[in-house]
This record gives sequence, structure tokens and C-alpha cells, in this order.
Amino acid sequence: MAQTMRTHDAGTLRAADVGSEVTLAGWVGRRRDHGGVIFVDLRDASGIVQVVLNPDDAPASEQELNSLRMEFCISVSGTVRLRPGDMANPDLPTGEVEVVAAEMAVLSPSETLPFQIDDRTEVDEAKRLQYRYLDLRRPSMTANLRARSRTIRAMRDVMDDLGFMEIETPTLIASTPEGARDMLVPSRLREGSFYALPQSPQLFKQLLMIGGVERYYQIARCYRDEDLRADRQLEFTQLDFEGSFWGQEDVLSTLEEVSIRVTKELRGIDLDRPFPRLTWHQAMERYGTDKPDIRFGMEIHDLSGVFAETGFNAFSGVLASGGSIRGINAGPLGLSRSGLDGLSSRAQELGAKGLVWMVTEEDGGLRSPVAKFLSDREMEGLVGTLGAVPGDILLLVADETRTVLEILGLIRLEVGQSEGHDELAYLFVVDFPVFERNEDGDFVALHHPFTAPVDVREMSENPGHAISKAYDLVLNGSELGSGSVRIHDPEVQAKVFETLGISDEDAERRFGWFLEALRYGTPPHAGFAVGVDRLVAILQNAPNIREVIPFPKTQSGADPLTGSPARVEDEQLRELGIEVRPEVRAEWAAGESAGG
Amino acid sequence: MAQTMRTHDAGTLRAADVGSEVTLAGWVGRRRDHGGVIFVDLRDASGIVQVVLNPDDAPASEQELNSLRMEFCISVSGTVRLRPGDMANPDLPTGEVEVVAAEMAVLSPSETLPFQIDDRTEVDEAKRLQYRYLDLRRPSMTANLRARSRTIRAMRDVMDDLGFMEIETPTLIASTPEGARDMLVPSRLREGSFYALPQSPQLFKQLLMIGGVERYYQIARCYRDEDLRADRQLEFTQLDFEGSFWGQEDVLSTLEEVSIRVTKELRGIDLDRPFPRLTWHQAMERYGTDKPDIRFGMEIHDLSGVFAETGFNAFSGVLASGGSIRGINAGPLGLSRSGLDGLSSRAQELGAKGLVWMVTEEDGGLRSPVAKFLSDREMEGLVGTLGAVPGDILLLVADETRTVLEILGLIRLEVGQSEGHDELAYLFVVDFPVFERNEDGDFVALHHPFTAPVDVREMSENPGHAISKAYDLVLNGSELGSGSVRIHDPEVQAKVFETLGISDEDAERRFGWFLEALRYGTPPHAGFAVGVDRLVAILQNAPNIREVIPFPKTQSGADPLTGSPARVEDEQLRELGIEVRPEVRAEWAAGESAGG
Repeated sequence: MAQTMRTHDAGTLRAADVGSEVTLAGWVGRRRDHGGVIFVDLRDASGIVQVVLNPDDAPASEQELNSLRMEFCISVSGTVRLRPGDMANPDLPTGEVEVVAAEMAVLSPSETLPFQIDDRTEVDEAKRLQYRYLDLRRPSMTANLRARSRTIRAMRDVMDDLGFMEIETPTLIASTPEGARDMLVPSRLREGSFYALPQSPQLFKQLLMIGGVERYYQIARCYRDEDLRADRQLEFTQLDFEGSFWGQEDVLSTLEEVSIRVTKELRGIDLDRPFPRLTWHQAMERYGTDKPDIRFGMEIHDLSGVFAETGFNAFSGVLASGGSIRGINAGPLGLSRSGLDGLSSRAQELGAKGLVWMVTEEDGGLRSPVAKFLSDREMEGLVGTLGAVPGDILLLVADETRTVLEILGLIRLEVGQSEGHDELAYLFVVDFPVFERNEDGDFVALHHPFTAPVDVREMSENPGHAISKAYDLVLNGSELGSGSVRIHDPEVQAKVFETLGISDEDAERRFGWFLEALRYGTPPHAGFAVGVDRLVAILQNAPNIREVIPFPKTQSGADPLTGSPARVEDEQLRELGIEVRPEVRAEWAAGESAGG
Repeated sequence: MAQTMRTHDAGTLRAADVGSEVTLAGWVGRRRDHGGVIFVDLRDASGIVQVVLNPDDAPASEQELNSLRMEFCISVSGTVRLRPGDMANPDLPTGEVEVVAAEMAVLSPSETLPFQIDDRTEVDEAKRLQYRYLDLRRPSMTANLRARSRTIRAMRDVMDDLGFMEIETPTLIASTPEGARDMLVPSRLREGSFYALPQSPQLFKQLLMIGGVERYYQIARCYRDEDLRADRQLEFTQLDFEGSFWGQEDVLSTLEEVSIRVTKELRGIDLDRPFPRLTWHQAMERYGTDKPDIRFGMEIHDLSGVFAETGFNAFSGVLASGGSIRGINAGPLGLSRSGLDGLSSRAQELGAKGLVWMVTEEDGGLRSPVAKFLSDREMEGLVGTLGAVPGDILLLVADETRTVLEILGLIRLEVGQSEGHDELAYLFVVDFPVFERNEDGDFVALHHPFTAPVDVREMSENPGHAISKAYDLVLNGSELGSGSVRIHDPEVQAKVFETLGISDEDAERRFGWFLEALRYGTPPHAGFAVGVDRLVAILQNAPNIREVIPFPKTQSGADPLTGSPARVEDEQLRELGIEVRPEVRAEWAAGESAGG
């Protein structure tokens, strides 16, 4: 398409263009003054080219030439010429040429920048977000935007190739099961009533399956009003898909295809398939987490057998009370005694009663504060089970099994996790439990209450141990998303609600319309949702998801650029049938009088 | 990709598949019992194939075979065979074959349907929305879903081909200039504060241009809390795009490309380009509207000159008070005298003082209730200006010019508009005024306050007549979307706010952050937003946009399926720092005690 304001993109000029008359437009990057001749790195979205502004050629008034500063937006017309041989810049694609300006016009000046537009300058994140439009000009951020765009495009290509239809589900919906974390939208036409923003398109995509769609996908905006947690956002994006007459293998195969294409697009790497799989139980036992980072081994081993008859009271006590002793071989960490003691303190911070460290000596013996309590057989068993060689550091925790696994899982990540994401380890975790117990000891759905159990009778009779047809995709220790085979039988759905302690009346009131929908020939179906933000962040080696979101909020949900969220006029709220609570107003008033 | 639950899609079977063993899954469409042998139209997303269930082959228990009803979800394994020659169905792609079932299983039964799943049965819309999942199984709705998916894909393909990056802008934003119609989202972390849902990504896409993106697009969900109006939704989808170093021609050319590709995809038609263009002034003068339906002529002509010296008081009075007399040649409408008088009444309903009709006679004379007041010269002038031939009906309105144009524009549509959208007439309307006056006589931005005026001085000195760089895309009399060249100079932006009567302090408070952003080398930029819902509705010949939205709301913003919007627990509101107003609660209480 012809462009009206320029003939060429700056970054595309090459030696073959020498002699061409070109009109460019972009921003002033570096600017150097050599005896009155001004050299400017002109940057546009395609790249950078050097422009020569020689006052003798009168490309602009002297005043304009002198006023030219960083990040001015300018247009330049001139001729492409070869740079003198020794002036060529091999680091720049356009480095062989430069444009000698015959005309230059300032399209838009720039005030002094709040920070430098480069990747070398460290800038406070609040300031970066306040001036996001400048932050986005930095090469790393431009690259992140592009990577995100290419990721989503690759996802769509896969889904299109597999015959999926892109379908938009509503974002003004009824409040859902996980209602407490719904964001609400007051209705103007029905005062005092509210829509909710979707935490996921879950029920609507299931309705699409009932509607005979068979293959649905959507790059869906979702919302979750979470408590402050590292690296979450109130709104986030997921690749959401669902298939009818589908089981787990169909979903995992599709996920592999998506992961492979996206990884190829962003990293140029061909991933092997099938991806490794662990059951949830294996993941917990071997890595102490349901999202293991398998880029390194350092697996957790059960040492309870080794210490079955130990005389060491701390261990025998734990075993007697039904707990276990487990450990990892952390390899040669190169830690001093105080460093090792530091690990013990860290484990205590994390909630362990303690952590025992042992160093494997040249003779195969173990050096440890507790060595004197252990028998030779126990030490041999330890070295054998953990495959220890001289120099290896062994870390043991004895406690309630759940705690042992959790602590060792966390310690494992702290001592083993490599910096960055140069290596990629995708993994499926399958066979999740149907339920977990919440703090009050009640059963809650581990995934969500529409997940199919493997065995309905087992679910009813032994809910604590029942396995579901749920699965997660994990990359480098991060959960990229989760999915499941769904319940398509209204009786099974009712049983799940029953086990969750939801009364018939309550189920009818909250999900009656959905239970009814299941009664009109619902096909077996299954699906998944992949978090786009996290996937792109890992593939781009970004330290957090905010780096790959064009306009993210801060950890407290604020936007320093536009000032949202903000107070609004009483009148506007009145029309919605709501008002700010008097207590909150009182706090405002107190704050204002105190603050001056 | 291999599927685990079936080997073939029902609609793909052909004579070449005869002898193949297949497993299918889908829904029971028609079901016929021929002497105990059951013939079922098995429907899946790919189409329909006939399945023969012969009890002699024992594909299922007799009970199961007998229980089979419409819309049961079943799976069938069997052999493809040719139908007997005289039984082939040439109307069905699979009509040459049928599948003889060796096994049949009911995957999911269906209760009695609330309405028939076909396009012949008329169903009340409220009921269709309540059972949208069944409504979507109807062939016309399935076709609409597919058409929408293909439309959006074609749009993306064009934008990708043209080098645009897809970028997601936030949907939890600060309240914007048109704030009164913003939908609000209370913040949990900052009690009593609110986010707004975007009416469009306008300011964020402008920030992306400032951020150096140069080519942005997004299929964006937008929100507008409009009063009840025909064929609007609270949430809607638009193809939103913006380009830097761009002017009007770049935008219109991109729009042509998008329209051509989408039309080709859905209609198989090659549109000619360039699309016709009218200035806003021409559109108003010739069609009485800024979104003319140019599928038919019937243009409005100014007859004020013809009647400059008329002795007909009704006309001379209007001219004397600065109004005008205009008319259309409605052609041979085939209306009786009472039909023509009906048009006069209709014009009065629409706000005209009256409408004069005239019938052109064989001798070139005019028959009309007012004929006796007109001179021969006036009648000749009328016939000449409107190009009337015998049998043509002429419709005249005399009033304030604005009213004349509006009424004739509406009457023109009523007498001239063809049913349906078989013919497609795309049109650009350009050169919109910068401002219009609201009911209080104050200037308001006709597009939005970020639209560039053609001439800044003219805008300041003569705001009522100033022209902007704004343009609309119109199809068959519907506005598909609008766009403009944006203001990239903060001084011009400030002047627009000034003309709109927004004080410096107010502008600073509401848009200060945006005015600041403009000060860092903002490139000239321009863009557009195309309404996806309306475009697909017209191309699919759908009577309203709800037919092409998977899960629309009713005209009152309600979802009969899930019951949103709904009241929520007080506790949930308390955490957000808001509450329902006592007056609204009082109404609820009154309604409940009155209603029982």
C-alpha cells in the first residue's frame, strides 16, 4: 500500500538503494554534531538509518537544525549514498548507507525526556508505567510487543489449521461459582443489579459445545479480582479452547501443537513431542509441587525406610506420628557452613521445623551437625538412595508429609533453579484430585466444579482420593494453564455439587440454567486455557508479565498513566442505583482534613 | 489430528467411502421408522448423513433404539454403503450413501425440546435467547457463527498482510470524555474508586502511536451504556486500527481492502474500488442523512428557486423565514390517494408540518391537492428539476432546511428502501463538521475531541462551519464505523477543548496525562473502527445484530439464559466500598410486599 507521508521505511535501506530519492519519517535517536554537520540516527518501526543534515545543503532553517533534540518526530527527504568505507557500521542492517537530507521538517517536537529511551538505563517501574508511551519506544519493549503479537498469531494459525472456529463469548455475564473474586459492573437499566466480568469463558464455551459448535477457540480477556500476588493482573489474556467428542488426548495433542508453533515462532526451536508427563501424585512426590521445574533433576526421595529404626529422636518422632523424612541431593553447591545454616533458616521461614544438611565426604562419609546421631547403615542408605558422590550436599526435612514435600519443593527451586529461561522444559501434569480441602476442612473443587471425575462412584464414596480428568501445562516451573474433560451428564454434575456441600436449592438457584442446558443432548467435551501473558514472558525471558503487557497495572491495580481507578461523580453513581459507603466517605474526609 | 471418539465427520462421507468402517458422533435430527428399521439423520458440525438402525443387526438394545428421540447425542459405528438408486438424496452432499450401524450408543439423551431445531419454526426471541444453546443448533445460526468467525479472520488476514501488529489495550481504564455512558467497575483494592470499561480504545491506540508502534490493530470489545435503542448492545466488537505517518487516504484505502476481502469471503463478490465518496454536506443535501443508502437514487432536490416567486402562501412563508422547499421524485409508487395521504401523515409523525404529494399525469401536468395554488411555470420547473415522467410521484416538504432534509431523508428510505441486503453499496462520507450544537446550543465534538480540524484558524474563528478530517464508512444506509486523522499537536488539542467550553483546569484534570503525552514527539496519525456486528449482520442478511452475536442481551440489557444482571450479596458490595442506594432497596421491598 502506498503511504502518503513517506516513500521508504528507514530500516530497509541498503546499498542497492544508493542513488534513490527517499522520504522518511521517524524519531531522532542519537544526534552528533561534527563541525556543524549534524548526524542523526533516524528511527522508525522498521529500524534505524543515519541521516546527514549539512547546513550547506539547507535542508531546514538553521534554527530548526539547531533545535533538533532526542525523540523529535521529523520527516526527511534526501538521497541515499554509501557511507565512506571506514565509516560503515557492520552492526546496523543499514550500516553501509546514509541519507543526505535535502529537506527536513519537524513534525512534532519533544520536551526533555523523563528517562533515556534505551535498554541500558535502569528506570523505576512506576515511572516507566507513567510514561508507558515512551517506555514502549525502548528496543526491548518493542520486541516484547512484537513477540506477543506473533505469539497470538501463531496460536490462531494452529487453531484455524485444526478447524476451530473463533467465537466471542460475552464479558458482561452473571456472577459465577467463584463469585467472591468476580469484578462487578452495575447495571443502569436495572438499578442495584450487577453484571460480572468473566474469570474465564468456562460456562459459555460449554454452552457452545451443547450448541453443536464442536471446535471453539478464543483469545479471551478474563478478569480476576485477586489479592495482591506477585505477577498477577486484574485482567489477563488466555487462549481458550474446547472440543466436543473429545477426551484428554485430543486436548494434550492440541496443546503440544500450539506450544511447538509458538516456541518455533519466538525461539526458532523445534520441540520434541510428546511432552513429558507426570501424574499429579508423581509431581508432588518427586518435586513437591504440582508445577515442577524439570530443567534440572534434584528430585525428592523418601528416606523414611532408611530411618525406619533410627535412634535419632527428631526423626523417629516424626515417623511415629505418621510423618516422613525426605531429602534431595542438591549436588556440589559450593556453600560454606554458614551458607548451609542459612538454608536451614530459610526452611524454617518457609514453615519447616528445620532442615538437616549433610556434606558427602571423599571417603563416602557424611559431615553434618546431626551425623553423630546416625548409624553407619543409615548413612550408607542415605548416600545410596540419594546417589551421593563426594562433594554433594544432601538436604533433609522431617515433618508431616505435606509440609516435607512443600518445603523441599521450594528449597529445591531456590538452590537448583537456573537464572532466566534459555532452556525450555514443557510438561503435562495429569490426574489431579477432584477435590482438595479448604482451611475449614470442607471439600472444594481443585480445578472447578465442572471437571469430570475418572470414576463417579469413587468420587462419591472416597472424595478425598478421587482422581479427575484434569491436566495442567507447565513450562519451567510455571503453570501455563489448565483444563479438563468436562462433566456432560447432569446427574454427575449434581453429585459434584452435592459433594461440595452445595444444597439442591442452592445449586438450582446458582446453576439451574446450566444444569438444564446439560439435559438436551450434551456431547462429551474437553478443553483448556493457556495464559498468554505468562507464556510470552517466559519465551521472552522477561522478569515479569508486566513486561509483555502493553499497558499493565501496578501490583495494587493502579494505572500511573491515566490515574485509574478513580473516584467518580455522585451523580454518575446515582444513575446506577449505588453509592459509596458512608464509612469510605468518612475515611476520605478524614484523609483530606489530615492531609491538608 | 486423530480424534479419539470418531473416525469421520458425518457430513464428509461420499460414494468413495463405500465399504469403509466408520465411527461417527452427533445429534439425532429427523428420525423415521420404516417397519421397525429406524432411519436417523445424524448431524454433526460438518453436516448430515443418514444412519440405518436395523434391530436385526442388533446395534443397541431394543429399549435404546426405541428411546431414541430428536437431539439425542449418539455415537454410531458401522459401514458406509450406497443407498438404493431411487433412495439417493441429491439435495444432501452425503445423499448417495448411508451408514448401516453395527453399534449405537446414546452419549447423552435430550428432554423434550422447547422448540424445533430448524429454520422453519418461528420462535419468540426471548425463548430463543433463554435456550440459546439450542437456538445455535439451527442451520441459520450455525451459518451466522461461521460467517462471523470467517469475517474476523479475513479482517486479521488483511491487517497482517499490511504489516499491522495486533496489540491488546486494557479494558479496565479511567473514565473518558464521554464518561456519562461509561460502564463502571468498582475497585476492591481502592474502595470507592472505579475503573471504566472502554467505549473504544481511542486514547490507548493514540498512545501506541506515540509509543512508535506505527501500525496497530485489534478486534476490540467495547462497551457503551446506551439508552434503549434499536439494534444496539451494551458490549460490541470492532476492528480498531491506527497508523502513524498516515493521512485520510491511507485509512480509506485500508478500509477498502478490508471490505473487499470480507465481502469476497462471505458473498463471493468482487467489489470495485475506489468506493464512491460523498462529503458530509453532499450527503445531507442529497440524501438528508450522513449515512445514505445509495442502492437507489431518489435524491433530494432543492426547489426553492422554482418557488422563489410563488403565490402559494405555505411555500412563500417558509422561504421568507429562511427555510427551503425540497422534494424527491419517488417514481411510480403505485399508491392510491389514501396511500399518498398516508405518506403526509407519516411525515407529520416524523416532525414535518406537512408533506405535499403530486402525481405526474400523462400530459406532463401535476395532480395534487395543492395544484391549484401553483403556476404553470412552477409546475414545469418542478417536473424539470425532478426529471418527472408520467406516473412519477413527487413528494415535497417546505420547512426549516434541517427539518426538510431530515424528513425527506426518512421518507425516501421508507418509500425507496428495498427489503434485505442482496445488493451491497459501500460508501465513504468525508469532510464532517468538527462540531455540532447540542440541545443547549453548546458546541460538542461531532466525532470526538481528538479529531483534527482541516484548518485550525477556521475552527477557532468559525467553529460552526469548520470541517474536520473525519470520515465514515457506510453500507446500505448503515454506518459501519468512523474514523479520523487525529490531532498530534498539543496546542491544537488545547484549542479544541477551549472551543468545547472545557476550561484549562478541567482539561488538565481530565486529559492532562494525554496532553502531556502529545508533547514527546507525537507522529501524525489516523485511524478507524469498523463495527463487526453490523457488518456481519448486513452481509448475512440478518434482520438485527443479535442474530450474529453468539450470546446477545435483550434490548433491556438482560440475558434470559443466565439471568444477568442480578442482585448480589451485600457482603460482596461491602468489600468494594459501595452499597445499593436506600431508595432502590425501598423500591425492592415495596415490590416484594406488593408482589407477594
